[in-house]
Amino acid sequence: MAAKPKLTYFDFRGAAEPIRYVLEYSNVEYEDKRIQVEDWLELKPTIPFGLLPTLEINGKVINQSTAICRYYAKKVGLAGSDDFEALQIDAIADTVVDLRTAIGMYHWRTPEAEKPARAKVLKTENIPTYFSQFEKILKENDGYFVNGKLSYADLLFAGTAEYFNNVMKFDVFEGYPLAKALVEKVHNLPRIKEWVARRPQTLL
Amino acid sequence: MAAKPKLTYFDFRGAAEPIRYVLEYSNVEYEDKRIQVEDWLELKPTIPFGLLPTLEINGKVINQSTAICRYYAKKVGLAGSDDFEALQIDAIADTVVDLRTAIGMYHWRTPEAEKPARAKVLKTENIPTYFSQFEKILKENDGYFVNGKLSYADLLFAGTAEYFNNVMKFDVFEGYPLAKALVEKVHNLPRIKEWVARRPQTLL
Repeated sequence: MAAKPKLTYFDFRGAAEPIRYVLEYSNVEYEDKRIQVEDWLELKPTIPFGLLPTLEINGKVINQSTAICRYYAKKVGLAGSDDFEALQIDAIADTVVDLRTAIGMYHWRTPEAEKPARAKVLKTENIPTYFSQFEKILKENDGYFVNGKLSYADLLFAGTAEYFNNVMKFDVFEGYPLAKALVEKVHNLPRIKEWVARRPQTLL
Repeated sequence: MAAKPKLTYFDFRGAAEPIRYVLEYSNVEYEDKRIQVEDWLELKPTIPFGLLPTLEINGKVINQSTAICRYYAKKVGLAGSDDFEALQIDAIADTVVDLRTAIGMYHWRTPEAEKPARAKVLKTENIPTYFSQFEKILKENDGYFVNGKLSYADLLFAGTAEYFNNVMKFDVFEGYPLAKALVEKVHNLPRIKEWVARRPQTLL
């Protein structure tokens, strides 16, 4: 019997939470390994490319959170029913991750003195650009990102929603009712609802 | 008859060149639309998410270069023969793009005064971390990134090689013979060789 896949990340939601959403949705048994920040410097050289999350599966250590989401999503029909649908789902997923990365860079990598100016650009330019486009796409696709049905892009977005708000310290969903409704729909899926109720409480 | 897909980017290689490699390898007819930098400010508000490259296909405008590579790669067997192979290919592709993004941020977004320090970190830390891991993976996979056979991750890497060197202004492949050999192998594929010989000469 193959070992359970092991997901390794910090004790945060961040880039791992969308994977957890897809794993929980898919009812996959996995180890949710959470390392402490103080152990990271020792662990980092042992991780390929020195970045988390990783997934240990089939004797290999795989990086890249979106690739991991897609892998499990395929098994439950959330990665597209044809190549063109998969393309649209993949494009949305990478776009959500681009915004998450921009917000993460602001939080983790921007010098304190530059943070207010950077927060303003995110709030008045980047976030409105992304969210107004998300809203347009959600309107055209009956409240989901692609073709009016649930995909891993929707799970990824909902699994990142809280991170957006917690880092930015304002409700980034205000004025974007379809984006907000999508997060609520995902959070009302029985398995996701159950996960959100029992998951560890963390800072981010 | 459906219109030819239209790829829109700047008159650079950058993030579009891997798509062009996959399209050329796949013998897909496409329009290689190249916009001038001075026209960008006018065009930007009309582009979803305000970023290039985009692909117009089936009446939609799709963003995200790696998703577009994967879409065409699937049609010619370069995106994995099963889900686990696809996962490994996708993870390498996203990792190459992470390094490309870091190098692009250095080039386009770092204030001049900070560039020497940032270049040093890239040269002595980031690039060795990525390339030593690439080299290890290539050794384990008979000179390709996944399972000893060509995939779109190899095309993406080879289509980015020149960008790495041109931006960093040193041979990032020095000391990494398998990475260098992979680029040569890809550039010796007949359709890629023909493309590289006839493609527009550009700065980046």
